[in-house]
Amino acid sequence: MIKTDISDLHKDIDNYKDKEIIIAGWVKSCRGNGNFGFLNLNDGTSFKGVQIVFSRDKILNYDSVEKLNTGSAIMCKGYIVLTPENKQPFEINATEITIISATDNEYPLQKKKHSLEFLREIAYLRPRTNLFNAVFRVRSELAFLLHEFFNKKGFVYVHTPIITSSDCEGGSELFRVTTQNIYDEFKKFEPKNELFGKKTYLTPTGQLEGEACAAAFGKIYTFGPTFRAENSNTNRHLNEFWHLEPEVSFMDLEGLMELEEEMMKYIISGIMKKCPDEMNFFNTFVDKELFNRLNNVIDNDFARITYTEAIELLKKNNNNFVYPVEWGTDIQTEHERYLSEVIFKRPVFVTDYPKDMKAFYMKINDDNKTVRGCDLLFPGIGEVTGGSERETDYKKLQTIMKEKHLKEEDYWWYMNLRKFGSVQHSGFGLGFERILMYITGITNIRDVILFPRTPNNCEY
Amino acid sequence: MIKTDISDLHKDIDNYKDKEIIIAGWVKSCRGNGNFGFLNLNDGTSFKGVQIVFSRDKILNYDSVEKLNTGSAIMCKGYIVLTPENKQPFEINATEITIISATDNEYPLQKKKHSLEFLREIAYLRPRTNLFNAVFRVRSELAFLLHEFFNKKGFVYVHTPIITSSDCEGGSELFRVTTQNIYDEFKKFEPKNELFGKKTYLTPTGQLEGEACAAAFGKIYTFGPTFRAENSNTNRHLNEFWHLEPEVSFMDLEGLMELEEEMMKYIISGIMKKCPDEMNFFNTFVDKELFNRLNNVIDNDFARITYTEAIELLKKNNNNFVYPVEWGTDIQTEHERYLSEVIFKRPVFVTDYPKDMKAFYMKINDDNKTVRGCDLLFPGIGEVTGGSERETDYKKLQTIMKEKHLKEEDYWWYMNLRKFGSVQHSGFGLGFERILMYITGITNIRDVILFPRTPNNCEY
Repeated sequence: MIKTDISDLHKDIDNYKDKEIIIAGWVKSCRGNGNFGFLNLNDGTSFKGVQIVFSRDKILNYDSVEKLNTGSAIMCKGYIVLTPENKQPFEINATEITIISATDNEYPLQKKKHSLEFLREIAYLRPRTNLFNAVFRVRSELAFLLHEFFNKKGFVYVHTPIITSSDCEGGSELFRVTTQNIYDEFKKFEPKNELFGKKTYLTPTGQLEGEACAAAFGKIYTFGPTFRAENSNTNRHLNEFWHLEPEVSFMDLEGLMELEEEMMKYIISGIMKKCPDEMNFFNTFVDKELFNRLNNVIDNDFARITYTEAIELLKKNNNNFVYPVEWGTDIQTEHERYLSEVIFKRPVFVTDYPKDMKAFYMKINDDNKTVRGCDLLFPGIGEVTGGSERETDYKKLQTIMKEKHLKEEDYWWYMNLRKFGSVQHSGFGLGFERILMYITGITNIRDVILFPRTPNNCEY
Repeated sequence: MIKTDISDLHKDIDNYKDKEIIIAGWVKSCRGNGNFGFLNLNDGTSFKGVQIVFSRDKILNYDSVEKLNTGSAIMCKGYIVLTPENKQPFEINATEITIISATDNEYPLQKKKHSLEFLREIAYLRPRTNLFNAVFRVRSELAFLLHEFFNKKGFVYVHTPIITSSDCEGGSELFRVTTQNIYDEFKKFEPKNELFGKKTYLTPTGQLEGEACAAAFGKIYTFGPTFRAENSNTNRHLNEFWHLEPEVSFMDLEGLMELEEEMMKYIISGIMKKCPDEMNFFNTFVDKELFNRLNNVIDNDFARITYTEAIELLKKNNNNFVYPVEWGTDIQTEHERYLSEVIFKRPVFVTDYPKDMKAFYMKINDDNKTVRGCDLLFPGIGEVTGGSERETDYKKLQTIMKEKHLKEEDYWWYMNLRKFGSVQHSGFGLGFERILMYITGITNIRDVILFPRTPNNCEY
């Protein structure tokens, strides 16, 4: 007889009615009265566990089972009994329980509720708790939904490099990669002695390589880890995070915004459908406004407004902002939320920012003051994606790079793309952990990635 | 009127019969006789391009179009004409051709065939060639098939960390990560001055963290970049490569081999179905034995043999090996291929290797000499995956770690997994580029990854 996954029981319990099965998993809780007990078991295949009923007259090791601690591993043979009148629609009447390994009081996860701070200290165990089980199961399904969305649309998934020699953000916030024994020797280290024979870094973005690929495949996306060495200890920053970066040839900013809106609706409605138990858990125990916020995204057309128009609207409320705005100032989180929550009450794209506020690669508008960028703002969180049409004109790119003190030779191949069949193209970036926070209601980014990397924190 | 993807034309051309459409893309080739010409266009959405027929009496800029170089970008308005009697089942009669950007002779990709070595020098352009277009399109679909396979089976996709403080392979072949200005200062660098406050590395594997996750979710897989700093300049080694690592709780070695066999058949038959044009191209122009080899994998049950049995069989052929074998020697590529190609003529799992040859985490057999590992050997290539049941006994793991001179404190959390609900579990690793080589027939691993990282080679 083969072990049945608990997920299979939940999927189609009628199929198992009165049948004998074997399950195996870890004890969530166990209590008994000396003759008769209940054991809640989870094998990780489903957010929901199962209730096992065990009694002294049916199993040989009743006393050992009754004493089982949270986290112990068991195998159980038993019969499925449907209990439509109860909270759980079925339970298992145990005929045999084998204790695979019993935990003792040293086991850090007990039945009681633990703080998120405590659980962060034991990142290798926290996926066993209900909350993190739900978070990381949603993370997995969300990743799949993104792959599915872009695959269906004919996008090519490209793996851009992690180790890079492009110092494309000035180097100050990049991790360096080295093969030299930097802590063991007292000497001047030379790039020429590296395995790669040069300075290398951990990439902060796959966009530039992604643009090269979009010039070959038309529609591409990257999805992988990227890195920022910044010393920011906030609830919203990680030094290592997963990044989605689609890039599409022959697409203007309008097309890009349509693509983003379609993707957001696809993944959010998809996750509500694929993970109902996990999402209900979040809506009940993490944030009671969650479903309202998510439905707001699914049900509404996203608004669109230019930066210039947004500033006009925001200025009327300058008295109430910590940072009053005028044309040329950054739109900060308080303004983003005011726009999306108070003015539009739905997601809103802000477009055409002053060129000084944005990266060199954004397409310059005819006014020579603004660029064809778009940030997507969500009620409740602010910016979730940043995108733009890219500058495709070689000369204009040269000019802006000079203005921004970037060296052309560092970007030789990127510049060449503007010589070799250059076409209109656009792309955006989505921080995967940021959208996961939005979808789960979790407010600390450390709690949506398995092993977070933040300043002074790199366990495992 | 909206641009139509060329892939949509190929999918359902009857739907477009006699209709006017707009397409846009890059010129593969263009020739004319002064009045009448043919232009082959590809927009990257499909391996196959389309033929555009243009003539002086229909378009205004005939002379400019006729002179277009490979790699130029155009937009074309025209009518679909079905041509069932020709090689191409349809062509486009141009009514308007807009030149978006014309390349000149500086463009490195001309109509002639380029060597793979030359193309490696222009990695940012090579995806535009037929061969690399096919390779990277297959790479994308293969990644999706892997996600699909594991998602359907209820595996949780986990993102294990890239930057790690676990020096789990002794450090000699790991890249170090630093935030210090190691080339600019002459001093002793201290780990405590790093952003993370300690020594950190680029991970060579997600397995250990994967095991922690399998103890929570039951069935997990990782898929992401991993790193080896080894100075190996061969056709089969990369310093940065993508790695699939599934891990399953309550699974023994037999179950693991079944899972691997099922996965291999799923992805190989899947890719034949999803990428017929690309696969035909490989079978015609790269390796005429390709389909035979792939069908051999799909159509046969994989054989299974222990290391000890394999050595007995191999010894009979010792005269013909460069490296004769005996019990305790490594099984090298020549032996792997002899086993899979001559003896079994199909994929074969070799199991239960001497413990000294394998990693510390493999489950030790009762003979205390061999471990429950399995390598999967494919005809034509040799080893494609390595897996094992994992040692779950705390004491046995302590003993083998001592034998292998590993420090227990470096693995404290991994050891703890053996205290906290330890259960039988198994997993394997698949080098994504290795299986891509097998599936495409490409013989240099640098040609199945977009921007390869090898010693002295880290462009882009």
